[in-house]
Amino acid sequence: MSAYGYQLQLKHLLEHGVRWAPDQEIVYRDKLCLKYSDFYSRVLRLAGALTGELGVKPGETVGVIEWDSHRYLEMYFAIPGIGAVMHTINPRLSPGDLLYTMKHAEDDILVFHEDFLPLVEQLRPELSHVRRFVILTDGVEAPKTPVASDEYEALLKRAKPLEKLPDLDENTRATLAYTTGTTGKPKGVYFTQRQLMLHTLSLGVSLAAFGGQGSATTRDVYMPLTPMFHVHAWGMPYVATLLGLKQVYPGRYEPELLAKLVKTEGVTLTHCVPTILQMVVTAAEAHGLTFPGWKIVIGGARLPKGLALAARKLGIIIYAGYGLSETAPVLTLAFRKPFMDDWDEDAQVDVDVSTGFPIPLVDLRIVDEHGNDVEADGHATGEIVVRAPWLTEGYLKEPERSEKLWKGGWLHTGDVAHFKEYGYVQIVDRLKDVIKSGGEWIVSLDLENLLSLHEGVLEAAVIGVPDPKWDERPLAVIVPREGWRGKLTGDQLKEHLEQFVNQGKLIRWAVPDRYEFVDEIPKTSVGKIDKKVLRKTYEGTQ
Amino acid sequence: MSAYGYQLQLKHLLEHGVRWAPDQEIVYRDKLCLKYSDFYSRVLRLAGALTGELGVKPGETVGVIEWDSHRYLEMYFAIPGIGAVMHTINPRLSPGDLLYTMKHAEDDILVFHEDFLPLVEQLRPELSHVRRFVILTDGVEAPKTPVASDEYEALLKRAKPLEKLPDLDENTRATLAYTTGTTGKPKGVYFTQRQLMLHTLSLGVSLAAFGGQGSATTRDVYMPLTPMFHVHAWGMPYVATLLGLKQVYPGRYEPELLAKLVKTEGVTLTHCVPTILQMVVTAAEAHGLTFPGWKIVIGGARLPKGLALAARKLGIIIYAGYGLSETAPVLTLAFRKPFMDDWDEDAQVDVDVSTGFPIPLVDLRIVDEHGNDVEADGHATGEIVVRAPWLTEGYLKEPERSEKLWKGGWLHTGDVAHFKEYGYVQIVDRLKDVIKSGGEWIVSLDLENLLSLHEGVLEAAVIGVPDPKWDERPLAVIVPREGWRGKLTGDQLKEHLEQFVNQGKLIRWAVPDRYEFVDEIPKTSVGKIDKKVLRKTYEGTQ
Repeated sequence: MSAYGYQLQLKHLLEHGVRWAPDQEIVYRDKLCLKYSDFYSRVLRLAGALTGELGVKPGETVGVIEWDSHRYLEMYFAIPGIGAVMHTINPRLSPGDLLYTMKHAEDDILVFHEDFLPLVEQLRPELSHVRRFVILTDGVEAPKTPVASDEYEALLKRAKPLEKLPDLDENTRATLAYTTGTTGKPKGVYFTQRQLMLHTLSLGVSLAAFGGQGSATTRDVYMPLTPMFHVHAWGMPYVATLLGLKQVYPGRYEPELLAKLVKTEGVTLTHCVPTILQMVVTAAEAHGLTFPGWKIVIGGARLPKGLALAARKLGIIIYAGYGLSETAPVLTLAFRKPFMDDWDEDAQVDVDVSTGFPIPLVDLRIVDEHGNDVEADGHATGEIVVRAPWLTEGYLKEPERSEKLWKGGWLHTGDVAHFKEYGYVQIVDRLKDVIKSGGEWIVSLDLENLLSLHEGVLEAAVIGVPDPKWDERPLAVIVPREGWRGKLTGDQLKEHLEQFVNQGKLIRWAVPDRYEFVDEIPKTSVGKIDKKVLRKTYEGTQ
Repeated sequence: MSAYGYQLQLKHLLEHGVRWAPDQEIVYRDKLCLKYSDFYSRVLRLAGALTGELGVKPGETVGVIEWDSHRYLEMYFAIPGIGAVMHTINPRLSPGDLLYTMKHAEDDILVFHEDFLPLVEQLRPELSHVRRFVILTDGVEAPKTPVASDEYEALLKRAKPLEKLPDLDENTRATLAYTTGTTGKPKGVYFTQRQLMLHTLSLGVSLAAFGGQGSATTRDVYMPLTPMFHVHAWGMPYVATLLGLKQVYPGRYEPELLAKLVKTEGVTLTHCVPTILQMVVTAAEAHGLTFPGWKIVIGGARLPKGLALAARKLGIIIYAGYGLSETAPVLTLAFRKPFMDDWDEDAQVDVDVSTGFPIPLVDLRIVDEHGNDVEADGHATGEIVVRAPWLTEGYLKEPERSEKLWKGGWLHTGDVAHFKEYGYVQIVDRLKDVIKSGGEWIVSLDLENLLSLHEGVLEAAVIGVPDPKWDERPLAVIVPREGWRGKLTGDQLKEHLEQFVNQGKLIRWAVPDRYEFVDEIPKTSVGKIDKKVLRKTYEGTQ
């Protein structure tokens, strides 16, 4: 049979974008502007350099440490395009974890930005598996160093470009990235050509068709504000290339330059975490800037309603999304449904800041400990488990953790949520922080919020402690305000919580029996309450 | 490994649509309005009836003869949903061809609308392979007939609904349809779950994101005006269901009812052939109606510019598309690129009426007889050959024709085209009507258009006749106008064509040497010039 067995490959996205918009621009900071057609030539040249001079074979791994750039986008296509694996390295990891991930990934080639030269020089003696080191520079000449055997632009210049990217099996591994939890070593998640293609198509149709907040079209100008080393910048560069959008890559994030690029390049489509949005809003307010029509998808953490309202005041169109490194990443987007177009602002923003609605091909359930669906009654909580055609098959070389991730054939997100009205998901906690007590799940975040409303409470953390009868019971750790130290009692706080029980906002069973008063609550390096330490402190106590 | 091997299946579209828009409406004529959630229940009930009472096994074939209805949409999901093949039967075929296709498909079950009862009664004695006949009726009771063992609604009422549609391999065959050429028996084309899913996703992202003429969104109201028995109504019902659109099914097409439905249901998204659009425009002009914002995709035949302009005057947003039964069907859509937004109307409409631009994942080439790409210079013509992940693997049980279709690993469309500016495709002829002469391709349509500009020409047809030296040479068959009969000469017409050669509009080589004058040109049953008959008439003559 001569029929062509079409394999889903990332090159199809690129080829479409180039065909549709050969003269469209890809901008790098205030330094460079490439046409799609030139960009495509550079991808083929890079592919030639990889397979030629660097001798990269299908299945080998190329590690990349780089800021957001046209070069990174070139690697997004050229490295998987020759059948190799692009290992996107997060430079924010500790040197120890960085080394661990590079050794674990067995990187054959390392491509790195000159900013990371000291780091690479430091790690080099341990990286015996890396065959060649390629340095990237924004300058005319790369810094002289014995570490880098090659410079990116020189390599491209010398290369014999491929005529086309080769045909690959769609199940060829395309990318690899490491995710860090609070426990254990970083874990490698990996995605195939097919998975990334299907993620792109579903995300593309979602952004374009489902929006009530403003749909993405070929008229948009895209700029990432989630780094490209972080789960393919949420897969958005692939969508942008498919649609032939003008793309703006800001390099290392510098607030002044970012604001300038948004204005001068006419950016209309972005994604970032709430912290970055907060920076944007603060800077805009300080300088009296507005950004009418700028669509920003928010993920990575809960989008506070106050922040969403502040962004709206600047003309920014804002809505939340949700996903994990394990899920390529997008699972949900907080699009409004058609009938919500007439709602008042407050109700609309409640939708915008929710965890969102599963995008096409995502089968999302919220289940109890036994894997049964919890009731979609707006209250009952459980763990989010998912299926979709773009989820990592496991953790690289970690069969046990992989089995746990995929227990029962569903990917376990570790996020605790309930269904809100109209099928929207709302995450309320991380699974490991939920308190399992007498068959009920008690959400620590809810309790902490309610406790913090008492005038004597400066800070509150609630954890589960082992209980012989009820499995776990909640324990509240409280930092009293000035003037309340030594005076605030557990009974007072119990009484405070009882009122919410009476109002139906809290189940009686959730009210903690024990209250510990401390001067300080231990925090992690990024400022989150360190519940692991708290649990260790109180697990043996009664 | 517990990781779930996600298979692309049509049920995922349905499940998404129902989850997103459970209260959205599916309207049938002026008779019925179903919510998506009720529709989904009916699909599960139908699936239960098929697997239960009707005993349909995976891989068996269910033939369907039906107008456009919610019932047909139910079958679009339930029949493939249980792993069976939905054979969409074109009732416009001759009874002989109908019988041929049903026997060739080996339909196990036949579902038919009561309008076709006389036909089914006539064919029944020959349909020994059909196990059960299910009749569909809009009325309260189906007409009594010994042919129909079952009535659709009664069957559904009795059925035990499935809880969910089962999981299938994505390469399971989902649909089968027959296409008729001018020669030979109808040919069966078939598509898998995966193919239809990928067609839906690419078409969805195209309609939503690429439009310059108006993008489709979840706010649209969809109504087909290409029958559902014709290549899945261009795959649009699947897109509409994915997006949770309000859908309107008009049953048998009746102009009065169609116009009424568009107005009362607020239809905004439709597709049809130019003939239907012409009917709509004529009726609207006669009744002084307008349709502001109604998006109509035109396919099946070339969209005349005059018709497009007339439709625009009524507020209709119009653009062309292209595909074949063999291609599921969509290959191109005539979307304007962003920089065309500023063009004047005339230039924009030239884009709208072109054959269009390949949608994502379609690899479209225009090649000469040796399979080499012709130059994309705006003139050079060749055959369109394609690859995409949703093309039929061949013709059912016809290995030779299948090999010919897929010669060299590219699906041969039989359409002759050139690339216009900016990568748009323009079809100029059918391959079998092109004249191959001295290594050049001469487009018969061009010659016919130019000949018809002579005041003495009522009608012109140009065919290729065998030539010992040049392979073929063009021969013009002319019906002179009243008053020119017996007077018009070949030399006059040659002279007439020479002026276009001098203007650079025609290559000299294309000017026919021979001119035959006749009273009438033979036509096919649908009114097209019958070139097969003409070629037969003149092939032996000199």
